[in-house]
Amino acid sequence: MTFSFDLLIEDKNSPARAGIIHTPHGDVPTPVFAPVGTQATVKTLTPTDLHDLKATLILSNTHHLYLRPGPELIADFGGLHHFMQWDGPILTDSGGFQVFSLEGLRKIDEDGVTFRSHIDGSMHRFTPERVIDIQEQLGADIIMAFDECPPPNDYDYNVEAMKRTHRWAERCQAAHQRTDQALYGIVQGGVFADLRAESAEFLTTLDFPGYGIGGLSVGETKTQMHQMLELLHPILPRNKPRYLMGVGSPEDLFECVARGVDQFDCVLPTRIARNGAVFTHQGRINLRNARFATDKNPIETDCQCYTCRTFSLAYLRHLMMAKEILALRLTTLHNLHFMLELMRRIRQSIFDGNFTAYKDSFLAVYQAVPEERRAKRRQPQNGD
Amino acid sequence: MTFSFDLLIEDKNSPARAGIIHTPHGDVPTPVFAPVGTQATVKTLTPTDLHDLKATLILSNTHHLYLRPGPELIADFGGLHHFMQWDGPILTDSGGFQVFSLEGLRKIDEDGVTFRSHIDGSMHRFTPERVIDIQEQLGADIIMAFDECPPPNDYDYNVEAMKRTHRWAERCQAAHQRTDQALYGIVQGGVFADLRAESAEFLTTLDFPGYGIGGLSVGETKTQMHQMLELLHPILPRNKPRYLMGVGSPEDLFECVARGVDQFDCVLPTRIARNGAVFTHQGRINLRNARFATDKNPIETDCQCYTCRTFSLAYLRHLMMAKEILALRLTTLHNLHFMLELMRRIRQSIFDGNFTAYKDSFLAVYQAVPEERRAKRRQPQNGD
Repeated sequence: MTFSFDLLIEDKNSPARAGIIHTPHGDVPTPVFAPVGTQATVKTLTPTDLHDLKATLILSNTHHLYLRPGPELIADFGGLHHFMQWDGPILTDSGGFQVFSLEGLRKIDEDGVTFRSHIDGSMHRFTPERVIDIQEQLGADIIMAFDECPPPNDYDYNVEAMKRTHRWAERCQAAHQRTDQALYGIVQGGVFADLRAESAEFLTTLDFPGYGIGGLSVGETKTQMHQMLELLHPILPRNKPRYLMGVGSPEDLFECVARGVDQFDCVLPTRIARNGAVFTHQGRINLRNARFATDKNPIETDCQCYTCRTFSLAYLRHLMMAKEILALRLTTLHNLHFMLELMRRIRQSIFDGNFTAYKDSFLAVYQAVPEERRAKRRQPQNGD
Repeated sequence: MTFSFDLLIEDKNSPARAGIIHTPHGDVPTPVFAPVGTQATVKTLTPTDLHDLKATLILSNTHHLYLRPGPELIADFGGLHHFMQWDGPILTDSGGFQVFSLEGLRKIDEDGVTFRSHIDGSMHRFTPERVIDIQEQLGADIIMAFDECPPPNDYDYNVEAMKRTHRWAERCQAAHQRTDQALYGIVQGGVFADLRAESAEFLTTLDFPGYGIGGLSVGETKTQMHQMLELLHPILPRNKPRYLMGVGSPEDLFECVARGVDQFDCVLPTRIARNGAVFTHQGRINLRNARFATDKNPIETDCQCYTCRTFSLAYLRHLMMAKEILALRLTTLHNLHFMLELMRRIRQSIFDGNFTAYKDSFLAVYQAVPEERRAKRRQPQNGD
């Protein structure tokens, strides 16, 4: 089966939408949150765990897998699905964001980027054609065009990077041969309305099956991010999925679905989990807090995740304080369940016609707890 | 239900035996290998994982749980079973071995031991009565008398330590009140036949429901360990379980079952797993070895563990090289499955009357591979 997107419903009171992305490895109901499996594993979890969580799409990182274990090995296994034994849909990024994050370790020219491996210091080169070749070897269902990710507030740099991203998008499209993969273009333009509009308009002419929105959540304000999404909503084609890359938090899911986004990925739930931070509907809490030392309740009483159905806060805190590896899996399970269940409820609320009311009621409670929740609003995404 | 032991069969060609230990939390078929859950978790695994592995008994460490999270907290949860949500049988050690391993951080007198916490440097005191009190708070099904663990080769020290262990065994027995726990005495005496015999004879007069064999696998040779077991077999009561503490490897299971041992625990399978070492019937291998980089086979083709049913050696090696936490869970699952399945087959072979043949055929293959397998014959056991 080839890739397609069915837009099933549009909210009457906001740009929120719900649909289904069809892929060769199964359907992805949208809006969707994709857990991040940087190195061919969502950290601490097996594919069985991901199925139990009802994850429908996971992301893996081209840059990391290119360096280790290498795309040839994964291709020899029949692709990433077989290598990691996850039979559901996979998206790979282009490696662009990771490579451009290697400050001082990379050199950009019109043809591509030369960079140094963080593993062994060896030199490597990504071009649009090479990145497509690698992603074809990895064999994900959705792959991304190679883009340049500039700092979001430098206008002149953003003009240059956007234009190069457009030329690279054309080269990626020309190079891409596998018909069982969907290649998304990526909108750039920093926090500048004219550039974002120009980028979306140009890429739309190339008729990609989906559109990434890149270069956000990397240093701009939430307000600026929201402004860019509002601007893009009427420009991007209505019948194609829009993928906001590297976002987001629970708040982000609501705020960005409300601005027309269909697809998200973020390391936030899994990364903070390994630091003991877990989501609740009353905000984020950290299990290391002494107030949980004797607490017999689960993280959330109504939560249906394995962690909450099984263990007390006191036990989870004990595992965290004792540096037990099991703690990291249990917090990861909870946080991913929280995000995936939240997205399922958001999607249902769009069908039920009460998305805005659900958004308002969730955020009123979630954002009412100031203490531990607001730390680290931004999570730069360069692999989990 | 109270504790009891049914000796079901004795091998015709060796001291090997098979039976069932009945406990308030279920039956434990013997001979049995108990995975170690030092800090109220078998590292990387949930109770669900342990049930899936068909583990029938786990060990937890009194010394560690006393220091963190503390026995009062665990008692307030209704005991260790409820705290860690493992509803099967549990054994706690007395903390003796751990405390005596704290070289320079402890002071022994006739009444007990004063020691320093490895967590915060605070001072603590264990006496026989206190150790029983703590183990009653933890609430395991099988608990151990407080013993002194001397270096195995110092005769005079072993005389002194054995006599003190005997006085402490009487005090433990006098202090123990819970009728839903079985208190085992511990045989000491180092590598000295006269002391081991004296210790076993004395403790037998106290009529414990089971007997630990302590102070082995801590520096003596395998031959010495085997000699001590051969000596103890006719002395220890036939109708009580014998528990060889802190042993063993796959070879040890065969060699020590062949000398009348019913119960084992050891950190070896779980500890080496976290270093990438896994058991096979052809000996121990390390997943980091470059020869597995492209290997599409599982660790063992016939193995029914989740890891072997799901993943290739190449993927497992990738996870290990990439320092992915998931690797540690997958290797732990395999090694524990290997040990538990091995013990189930050993037990069946005793019923089938072919234990010695099974032992010989296993060891002939397992010990034929010299390269990676023989490192670390000894695993000092002070918690996993």
